[in-house]
Amino acid sequence: MYKCSEDRMADKIKTMSQFGDAGHGGITRYSLSKENLMARAEFKRRMEAIGAKIKTDDMANMYATLEGSDPTLPAIVMASHSDSVRNGGNYDGILGVMGAMEVLETVAEQKIPHKHNLVAMIWTNEEGSLYPPAMMSSGVICNDYLPEEIGKKFKHEDMLASTSVLDKTKTFKEALEASGYKGDVANRLNPKDYKAMFELHIEQGPILEAANNDIGIVTCVLGMINYRIKTFGQSDHAGTTPMPYRKDALYAAAKLLQYLHDELDKLDKALVYTTGEIVCHPNVHTVIPDFVEFSIDARHEDPKVIEQVVEVIKDMPKEIVGCTTGYERAWSRDTVYYDEKLVGYVTEAVNELGYSNQRINSGAGHDAQFVSYMMPTTMIFVPSKDGHSHCEEEFTPVEQCTKGASVLLNAVLKCDAQ
Amino acid sequence: MYKCSEDRMADKIKTMSQFGDAGHGGITRYSLSKENLMARAEFKRRMEAIGAKIKTDDMANMYATLEGSDPTLPAIVMASHSDSVRNGGNYDGILGVMGAMEVLETVAEQKIPHKHNLVAMIWTNEEGSLYPPAMMSSGVICNDYLPEEIGKKFKHEDMLASTSVLDKTKTFKEALEASGYKGDVANRLNPKDYKAMFELHIEQGPILEAANNDIGIVTCVLGMINYRIKTFGQSDHAGTTPMPYRKDALYAAAKLLQYLHDELDKLDKALVYTTGEIVCHPNVHTVIPDFVEFSIDARHEDPKVIEQVVEVIKDMPKEIVGCTTGYERAWSRDTVYYDEKLVGYVTEAVNELGYSNQRINSGAGHDAQFVSYMMPTTMIFVPSKDGHSHCEEEFTPVEQCTKGASVLLNAVLKCDAQ
Repeated sequence: MYKCSEDRMADKIKTMSQFGDAGHGGITRYSLSKENLMARAEFKRRMEAIGAKIKTDDMANMYATLEGSDPTLPAIVMASHSDSVRNGGNYDGILGVMGAMEVLETVAEQKIPHKHNLVAMIWTNEEGSLYPPAMMSSGVICNDYLPEEIGKKFKHEDMLASTSVLDKTKTFKEALEASGYKGDVANRLNPKDYKAMFELHIEQGPILEAANNDIGIVTCVLGMINYRIKTFGQSDHAGTTPMPYRKDALYAAAKLLQYLHDELDKLDKALVYTTGEIVCHPNVHTVIPDFVEFSIDARHEDPKVIEQVVEVIKDMPKEIVGCTTGYERAWSRDTVYYDEKLVGYVTEAVNELGYSNQRINSGAGHDAQFVSYMMPTTMIFVPSKDGHSHCEEEFTPVEQCTKGASVLLNAVLKCDAQ
Repeated sequence: MYKCSEDRMADKIKTMSQFGDAGHGGITRYSLSKENLMARAEFKRRMEAIGAKIKTDDMANMYATLEGSDPTLPAIVMASHSDSVRNGGNYDGILGVMGAMEVLETVAEQKIPHKHNLVAMIWTNEEGSLYPPAMMSSGVICNDYLPEEIGKKFKHEDMLASTSVLDKTKTFKEALEASGYKGDVANRLNPKDYKAMFELHIEQGPILEAANNDIGIVTCVLGMINYRIKTFGQSDHAGTTPMPYRKDALYAAAKLLQYLHDELDKLDKALVYTTGEIVCHPNVHTVIPDFVEFSIDARHEDPKVIEQVVEVIKDMPKEIVGCTTGYERAWSRDTVYYDEKLVGYVTEAVNELGYSNQRINSGAGHDAQFVSYMMPTTMIFVPSKDGHSHCEEEFTPVEQCTKGASVLLNAVLKCDAQ
């Protein structure tokens, strides 16, 4: 078994963490920002140093290709993203890029034979923090392969027209043109020229750490549904309306939220559900609320469990404390299973390396999830300290980052051998 | 007993309802807006037509004075406001102005003898909808008499510096200068030149209507406290964090809100309390909330009951579903009792007129509440259809509006006789 270099990995982490350093442990590195272009330049510099060839496609996705002994074979790609959320951490996304770089550097340094071209890739704008939505580029590149409901949210022209959340006069298209990284549409990842995609990523949850496992063999991205739950009351004056006359939409929403917790907690223990967003109208301390809406996001591998969630929502009380209730289905996706063969390579690699591991699913969305509709794809997780991500506390020890890269390397070599 | 004219009252309601007509039954008539200046011009026109003299003070409060047989005596003033909230109704505030106009018109028409000067007055910017805060002018004019905690929120220079909620570059001072209604500081309402203030207003609640009473004899403005209730959780990813690991600040807030309802419902039945505002962070449907804050506004005549509310808040659980809780006292006022003598005049007047009536308290704040710290003051309520106010559905039949004006007239004449 081949192993990657912990020192080289540590150096990459240290270097990349400077680009967008927010001064208190994390980074803000929006896609195509100045800081992001610095990270891309570093990627280019390091990859060219080992003889890899750089190209970009029309969405500024970057590909560094190390030629194999038979360049006519379809390439194997290892990819993730280099952008972050606002005040994000030093691992989400960039770890997968650094892991791919580390694999190519190890292959180059140890002169590991391989037939297929091996590619380290950066996806543009996975977070969508400055130019929404998230997973923008994979949504565009894989658009023809996505389920219709998802694909229509990622139409190419709509994505180019996306405006900056900080300056509504600026479009993603302008940022793309100005970046210097916009390339040819012919360079896009595609199922003819590429054989498989692997993505190394932090878990973003507490499961691996709790189980004391170094590696998560990702088998699927959880199916999910999103609803908007609504309560309709009557807006009256806080000081002049006796309690029995009130139709308080926020009180109704609190009761409904408790009801949903009680009912959903009866379902399978692996179900995760979140009421993360609430809107209250008119949201004034001296006025009884007449309308409240909150989100519910529920995820589970088994569509039967998701169906049970739908039933709970359909069966919720139509009236609570004098307020009527309603709901609206906002968004859903089926469970996306990763490619069995690739999951097999990862499993063999991790076991042969002797790293503690478990099978795990991905509750979060990743570019790999969209790519999996187009070509064989899978993911590898490493632990997240305290389960945190999308925050400055995000942390994975360099030993585990390097183990993740070594698993990636050996899984890719197994794929190369076939 | 003298009675006001229903026809003349109906004509005033119809006319005033045009100034700021939003096209669907209500008005938007911010203080000192174009629409508001039209209402002021109409007030001036009608009052001058009956021989009243117009003056304004430095806050653009307008005074129309009908001279009494002994102009050396302190004047009796009838006042309310002519501005509205956004998409407000045709009665809140302006009814008290129209009632005062109607009293003077009746006095003039019927040549009713009176010793004291009688004054119809418009308070500037009671709603504070464009230039916060509410009750701005009475807060300034009565500042020296207000409790310290309240007075410091209405310092003259701070009020002049208040910026428009629609255009932060515009100040209230500029609106005042541009209005053409800014007058002399010497013209301010004061306890030397004025004997008493009466304010006719809609109830803004359902009590009079439910009891089928035409008139509410207002005895006090309810004491109140305002708290900010907080829950602190942990922000984690909606898809990757198993339920037992979560510290969901919104779920904790829902439970705390229910707890407060349960405990407060055990207190006196006349207590009103409202959780009208909620803020959730980061308020994203895919992220577990780490911080939620909601307001609680509680009002009761008896300070002992308010003290019980304080105890409930102090005793609330320090931890709920893994989240810590906290609270912050935001604002409070003691119950303000109206002047006993004036309440007596209103009571005699309404009984002599034979109108159905009851004693009632005011849960909402009014300019009269601030004036009552400075000089004898009281209020008269008429019913609000379905208890609604601060909305376009606001309605009081013209018969009841006129009855309110008749009670005002006769109560003022009783005051004049003393």
